[in-house]
Amino acid sequence: MSNKDGLSTDSYKGVRDFYPADWGRLQAAFGRVRETLSSWGYEEYQASPLERSELYESKGNEEIIRDQTYSFEDRGGRRVTLRPEMTPTLARMVSGKRRELAFPLRWFSIGNRFRYERPQKGRLREFFQTDVDLIGLPEGEADLEILTLASAVFRAFGASDSDFTIRINSRPLLSAACRAAGVTDAEGVKEYWLLLDRKAKMSPEEFDAARGTTIDPLRAIEDATDPLVKAEKDKVLAMIEELKKRGIENVVFEPEIVRGFDYYTGIVYEVQDTSPENPRALLGGGRYDGLVAMFGGDPIPAIGFAFGDVGLMDFLATHDLLPAALSAPELYIGTPSPSDIPLAQAFAESVRERGIRTFVNLGEKQLGDQIRDAVKRGIPYFVAYGTEEDNRKSVKVKTLATSEEEEVNVTVVAQHIHAKKN
Amino acid sequence: MSNKDGLSTDSYKGVRDFYPADWGRLQAAFGRVRETLSSWGYEEYQASPLERSELYESKGNEEIIRDQTYSFEDRGGRRVTLRPEMTPTLARMVSGKRRELAFPLRWFSIGNRFRYERPQKGRLREFFQTDVDLIGLPEGEADLEILTLASAVFRAFGASDSDFTIRINSRPLLSAACRAAGVTDAEGVKEYWLLLDRKAKMSPEEFDAARGTTIDPLRAIEDATDPLVKAEKDKVLAMIEELKKRGIENVVFEPEIVRGFDYYTGIVYEVQDTSPENPRALLGGGRYDGLVAMFGGDPIPAIGFAFGDVGLMDFLATHDLLPAALSAPELYIGTPSPSDIPLAQAFAESVRERGIRTFVNLGEKQLGDQIRDAVKRGIPYFVAYGTEEDNRKSVKVKTLATSEEEEVNVTVVAQHIHAKKN
Repeated sequence: MSNKDGLSTDSYKGVRDFYPADWGRLQAAFGRVRETLSSWGYEEYQASPLERSELYESKGNEEIIRDQTYSFEDRGGRRVTLRPEMTPTLARMVSGKRRELAFPLRWFSIGNRFRYERPQKGRLREFFQTDVDLIGLPEGEADLEILTLASAVFRAFGASDSDFTIRINSRPLLSAACRAAGVTDAEGVKEYWLLLDRKAKMSPEEFDAARGTTIDPLRAIEDATDPLVKAEKDKVLAMIEELKKRGIENVVFEPEIVRGFDYYTGIVYEVQDTSPENPRALLGGGRYDGLVAMFGGDPIPAIGFAFGDVGLMDFLATHDLLPAALSAPELYIGTPSPSDIPLAQAFAESVRERGIRTFVNLGEKQLGDQIRDAVKRGIPYFVAYGTEEDNRKSVKVKTLATSEEEEVNVTVVAQHIHAKKN
Repeated sequence: MSNKDGLSTDSYKGVRDFYPADWGRLQAAFGRVRETLSSWGYEEYQASPLERSELYESKGNEEIIRDQTYSFEDRGGRRVTLRPEMTPTLARMVSGKRRELAFPLRWFSIGNRFRYERPQKGRLREFFQTDVDLIGLPEGEADLEILTLASAVFRAFGASDSDFTIRINSRPLLSAACRAAGVTDAEGVKEYWLLLDRKAKMSPEEFDAARGTTIDPLRAIEDATDPLVKAEKDKVLAMIEELKKRGIENVVFEPEIVRGFDYYTGIVYEVQDTSPENPRALLGGGRYDGLVAMFGGDPIPAIGFAFGDVGLMDFLATHDLLPAALSAPELYIGTPSPSDIPLAQAFAESVRERGIRTFVNLGEKQLGDQIRDAVKRGIPYFVAYGTEEDNRKSVKVKTLATSEEEEVNVTVVAQHIHAKKN
């Protein structure tokens, strides 16, 4: 929107403004995520969105950095990129203190990521992502913990296993299948993976035409006649069985999953919403045993996942699992006259101290208008406070949803409201 | 630090990496701030750090935008700035929904701000700032509430009034004093304010020399012989008296306070640490009744303040008021053998569900090494869990600080630890 005769009130293209109601909803969801991850012993870390561009530059992806990220030169000639993902920053931080840190690390981070997207519906240039990583353990129990934790995040909102599916594949399996299908050069493997990554958006005919004349590696996986393919496939299937034994039933083998990043070296996986209304990957991850060693030193094995705020909130809305928004005021203290404000503020302080989110009307509206104002704001309780209430040491607590009023001693107003909330 | 033979592990110049211990401390402090502001009925909002550069461009400050902010052009030719402060974004958001919002607004935001600074000690290019604003009310009770709230933020950490001072001045008073001292042109007034802003860093002789030959407006304020100066000064002094009547004793009139931003129109103020170890402004703010109208429409009066994370944490450290860090794991579950991990994870889940932050050792270390690992990590409790514990349905809970061990039934381990924490 843009007001007449002034600066535009639009945000920058492709990013969002979060008014308190929206932010309160998102913070409630992030709070639930934080609580779950912390309960598993995972600790939150953070870094600046400003990173040296070098961090994202590996052979062959200069174009992606130039075209799909926010990258610029600072006035000291340093190339800067607004982080498009967290894993390189994580690997940098871990490597930077590898001698001091107690491995394995269980770390998570919730923050914004930036991608330069052409502005279009649903294409955000800034989004929030939660990254969860277990660093310093090889495949095995670490993979099982991370997959269980991915499930726990959704279960923590009350999701049942029928609401989402965990789909698992393996990069070593995909490599073995490519070799078995005669795709042996690194270039050809990479091309096939890119194609596989787009397969869901193509017809079977388009896919077959695009992959050319080689045997389809997917067929090699299905048949599993090649011994290496069979060994890698059995490993994934065994892991799925183990997860089921431990109570994670909604997990399937999905040979078409690739995940975009170059750095994955083991399993790769996604969590998919089962609702036909929201048919998308909500979360993705994989094992990346080589990334930390890019900064020097011995490799440190690692596995992790990430999920964005848009997918999470859509999932929660679709399955009616949105938590109540945080931080909205609970009590509106009305003032019969502006001269009552000092008394009302002193009373408010006694209620705030007991944990009720409270503000005092500071304007000159009539009490009736103040009650209407409280209703408009969605505040559940109203108390008028002036000389009279101050003298009789009790107030009328009005529940705005029902218009019910109860006379309550000033010393127990907070307790009264706490009790009514439950 | 930079490891041999690899990418540098340094962060970008002038920004910080927050490892879990540092971030946990900062989050604990922000949590306390959030709780305090919410208890006053203030609601959190958020926006992207990417803003249109236009938002910061007013006549005469093009140079500041170019030299002191991160500004660049995106590939669509749009000029983008990483927000150096939150108030313009707030004014934009308020103006954009001025027809729908219920005024007055009590809003706050905690987030990062960016300034292009030459890298040097203590000069950060990214810092966290808490912005608090009360929008839609003229001077009077709104100013008193905001100043009381600025005090409440520090008191919430246990600070006493002797730990900090609230220093108040008034832009209308400064204007009147300039006029009374013969500085009548806008340019001259602005120059004098810039000089006054630097006064603390100058000797009296340097200041007198720099301000030239005019009567010092500070003298005009002291004498208060000019009727307008007297009226504005009396207003500030009356507000200070009113704050004292309401229990805020540590508030003083300070005619040398200017605050940097052009948009202030009423009182301006700072909170200063009284410790000689940390002699700096921790918080600053003022009334800005004209800013929202820059986007069109009638003016909406507003007052607010902001404080940075570095000043807050230094203040808390100086006065020994740092809250305990959040989210660190509380219970380390050791595994006698790797084959015990599934049992141990199932047991861990029952403890997590009861609110204890818990992880399971997934490596192959001996139990003694696992205990040493728990100590190294600063985790307070240790429980070994394997076939034996699973059979006897009880475990030994070890308090690592004292090496004391207690046999506890598996169903009440979480309660046991909760009880020991208190």
